[in-house]
Amino acid sequence: MSFHGSTARLSEARRVAIFGGTHGNEMSGVALVNLWIKNSDDIQRRGVDIKPFIANPKAVEKCVRYVETDLNRAFTPENLSASGGDEFPYEVRRAQEINRMFGPKGSPEAYDVIFDLHNTTSNMGCTLILESSKDHFNLQMMNYIKKAISPASCLVLLNEHPLLKYSTCRSVAKHAVGLEVGPQPQGVLRSNIFEAMRVILKHALDFIELFNEGMEFPPCTVEVFRVNERIDYPRDANRNIIAMVHPNLQDCDWEPLNPGDPMFQTFDGKTIPYQGSCTVYPTFINEAAYYEKQQAFVTTRRETLAASSIRKA
Amino acid sequence: MSFHGSTARLSEARRVAIFGGTHGNEMSGVALVNLWIKNSDDIQRRGVDIKPFIANPKAVEKCVRYVETDLNRAFTPENLSASGGDEFPYEVRRAQEINRMFGPKGSPEAYDVIFDLHNTTSNMGCTLILESSKDHFNLQMMNYIKKAISPASCLVLLNEHPLLKYSTCRSVAKHAVGLEVGPQPQGVLRSNIFEAMRVILKHALDFIELFNEGMEFPPCTVEVFRVNERIDYPRDANRNIIAMVHPNLQDCDWEPLNPGDPMFQTFDGKTIPYQGSCTVYPTFINEAAYYEKQQAFVTTRRETLAASSIRKA
Repeated sequence: MSFHGSTARLSEARRVAIFGGTHGNEMSGVALVNLWIKNSDDIQRRGVDIKPFIANPKAVEKCVRYVETDLNRAFTPENLSASGGDEFPYEVRRAQEINRMFGPKGSPEAYDVIFDLHNTTSNMGCTLILESSKDHFNLQMMNYIKKAISPASCLVLLNEHPLLKYSTCRSVAKHAVGLEVGPQPQGVLRSNIFEAMRVILKHALDFIELFNEGMEFPPCTVEVFRVNERIDYPRDANRNIIAMVHPNLQDCDWEPLNPGDPMFQTFDGKTIPYQGSCTVYPTFINEAAYYEKQQAFVTTRRETLAASSIRKA
Repeated sequence: MSFHGSTARLSEARRVAIFGGTHGNEMSGVALVNLWIKNSDDIQRRGVDIKPFIANPKAVEKCVRYVETDLNRAFTPENLSASGGDEFPYEVRRAQEINRMFGPKGSPEAYDVIFDLHNTTSNMGCTLILESSKDHFNLQMMNYIKKAISPASCLVLLNEHPLLKYSTCRSVAKHAVGLEVGPQPQGVLRSNIFEAMRVILKHALDFIELFNEGMEFPPCTVEVFRVNERIDYPRDANRNIIAMVHPNLQDCDWEPLNPGDPMFQTFDGKTIPYQGSCTVYPTFINEAAYYEKQQAFVTTRRETLAASSIRKA
């Protein structure tokens, strides 16, 4: 990235991948990517090579999140640099393969952009997930998409946290974009969620085409929700869950949770309030896949990020 | 059953079981049964032995529908009469064990009532499932529950069909009652669904207590939805799904579907209308577990059943 005046000059985005089925039971991405593999009319853009790709075909075949270990946590430096073969879990071997195809992660040869399509059982609506607050290309893309789909809304989750960040599939690319749309049960395909995801991808690819054609995007600001803290379900001495997300909090992703607000309800009807010291914005509330990760929801803080003007180098 | 005047005299219901976890990822039944195993205050009734029971513990442990085969289809005469052991799938062996504990199916020794608690990803609300239109005890129970929870609603699905009926866990008992509550994603526990299920069980057990104490229940009628036809998703020549439940039909369980109404939407946006010859009432719309059973929804017909007056013998 270089600056001419106040405008950042960035490389074109010529190689783009769209991952579906990183989790094999999140059906919108699986269906869209399979559709685009058969017929790519929707996703063709001038001067861009766009590759739709099923990230975890074995998990897709079985309609499970993963076969042996979570692929979307597997892109660690240790895994990607390990040599060897069959002794590794399937998803670790698949991560190495994906890193060879779309990376290597952190190298100049890596793909420019990877979109990674996910569904959630949470009532999150359309959520774009970023891993860095300093990626002006991505911030400009978020701003473009938000404006393009208005008055529909699309929120941005910033997963930039020293402890809670994890090693995603999409982190192989120079610009990593997660797209999480819900609510949709695992193993189910809902037409409204499919359509919402399709439309956001359309605008994201339009942005890339415009950028490549030389359009300058002026400075802007983007509201994001920065990941703050994981909250587990209340448990007994044997680590069994003893409470549910409180009805006042269920489905209220992105709404303020204030100190003292109801947070959980025990199976015998008692309310457990939130005891934090300030207002937070919970999300991923009651996501099915996060029971095993001991997470009832994640709290976030609202921030406004500034993106500089960008233009292709 | 004997009649005195117009009143059917029926045996008391002294042994009652409540099954949770027949499908291991349907969490409301699992949570309620585990709660009641620890503390049975909620479900104690005078003169009734009530046993809360986890039907498929291995599936519950893994949070999957089943380990080897669907337990709720396994109670066939062939399975229950087979001798042998480890060569059978886990669920077939478990069915034999359940039949020994709560049956034998069809015998005078069988449990009087089994409630089997299920969740669905469909927008079915509270649904009681019956297997016979001639079980006056169950019809009176349905009538009692419907009145008790009013103005909340609880519908009755009659799964009495020469081809579409299947061999459920609860069919071991003299009176088999399924309780299906949704929408709830697999592997998720929602407080509203948990509470709805808890309240219906309370009224069902109250009915049994009143019946055992000698209360006479006068003749009544019960509206039921009788299973009519399974409808599969549209598929291509390779049997891959090519369309989703249409947005106009999604979440519209129990609402009339008329000839010509939109039914599916293909991935490339075309509408496929319903081409039946008369109005039906679809349910189990877009249930996650029924993709593998090649069922997008089931159609039903509305009927009104008459229950005679009943009293204990």
